[in-house]
Amino acid sequence: MSSQPGTVRVPQEERTRAMRARLLEATVECLVERGFSGTSTTLVSERAGVSRGAQLHHFPTKNALVVAAVEHLTEVRGAELEKAAAALPTGRRRTRAVLQMLADHFTSPVFTAALELWVAARTDETLLAAVAPLEQRVGRQTHRLTVELLGADESRPGVRELVQATLDLVRGLGLANTITDDARRRRRILDQWAVALDDALADDDLQGETA
Amino acid sequence: MSSQPGTVRVPQEERTRAMRARLLEATVECLVERGFSGTSTTLVSERAGVSRGAQLHHFPTKNALVVAAVEHLTEVRGAELEKAAAALPTGRRRTRAVLQMLADHFTSPVFTAALELWVAARTDETLLAAVAPLEQRVGRQTHRLTVELLGADESRPGVRELVQATLDLVRGLGLANTITDDARRRRRILDQWAVALDDALADDDLQGETA
Repeated sequence: MSSQPGTVRVPQEERTRAMRARLLEATVECLVERGFSGTSTTLVSERAGVSRGAQLHHFPTKNALVVAAVEHLTEVRGAELEKAAAALPTGRRRTRAVLQMLADHFTSPVFTAALELWVAARTDETLLAAVAPLEQRVGRQTHRLTVELLGADESRPGVRELVQATLDLVRGLGLANTITDDARRRRRILDQWAVALDDALADDDLQGETA
Repeated sequence: MSSQPGTVRVPQEERTRAMRARLLEATVECLVERGFSGTSTTLVSERAGVSRGAQLHHFPTKNALVVAAVEHLTEVRGAELEKAAAALPTGRRRTRAVLQMLADHFTSPVFTAALELWVAARTDETLLAAVAPLEQRVGRQTHRLTVELLGADESRPGVRELVQATLDLVRGLGLANTITDDARRRRRILDQWAVALDDALADDDLQGETA
């Protein structure tokens, strides 16, 4: 074996990567189906078909597992968002399409799993220490992507806050959607916000701007 | 005693009402401090200084207790909102003041306790059956109050959706605030939203309106 280290090492690395991905995806499924308190490392290893020993080697605690899982899915979903962004229409329909893309993201299983984590972290200091920096990083990425997709000029006073408001709006819509299916109401709200946002971004008289 | 039924019955009723209120307030405190999974009927009866027997007589299950608690606090807070509404300024500063009032509501302990309930109800059918109607009723009340305070004319197409968007925005801001203190960011977002909302509500050309 030592004569062909390359051919041996690569498949092993790939098996490890695939096993980690299975564990992380099973964790997100558990968070979505059973919530944070119903998620256990035992359930996850069973669902992923990974031995307890191997799982504990990679993720020694439940907290390590759930934080890594939401981080992993956020990255996967982020890459999907970037790809979807390339297919967005230009012109008049663009703002509404950007809002739809964001709303889809904030009503996806990744959001639901992250919500379970946020709420659990509120009353669990150890979890909070891991979740807060993740949440900040994800928030910054989503903000940057949204600015770019809307073609918003953040050097103008007020524009940054309107983009933040848009993201807080879709976060609120995501939360509302977790206990009632809200797609129709959401669509109509986004129709209106697209118009109001375009008007506000085009407005020369934003709050705080010196005329 | 049977010769003075009135003087005996009234204090007893009042003692019962005071005991129920203590139980419900202790439940909200527990939800805020320890989350849904960290809240137990034992902890609540200890904190409220009420015997287990008396507590179980009024609230036989944890679910009965937590739903009644959030309902009770929502009513108390609703009455406070109505009172605060009377003190709101008129004229140019009114919209911003309405938004502040709503944001204060959605970052209060009542919101935090309700959030714990919503998230737990997502994966607990029994709890969901109790929480969903409460959530709907509270949502309708808050919507009606907001329409009234903004003086919004919902007979115009698009106005209803802008009011809903405003409430989804403050819900999103409330969620963001649970893991980071967000007061400064929130203030600036609400400044911009007030301007955009006033402009949109004054706009003759709302989406869906036939010109």
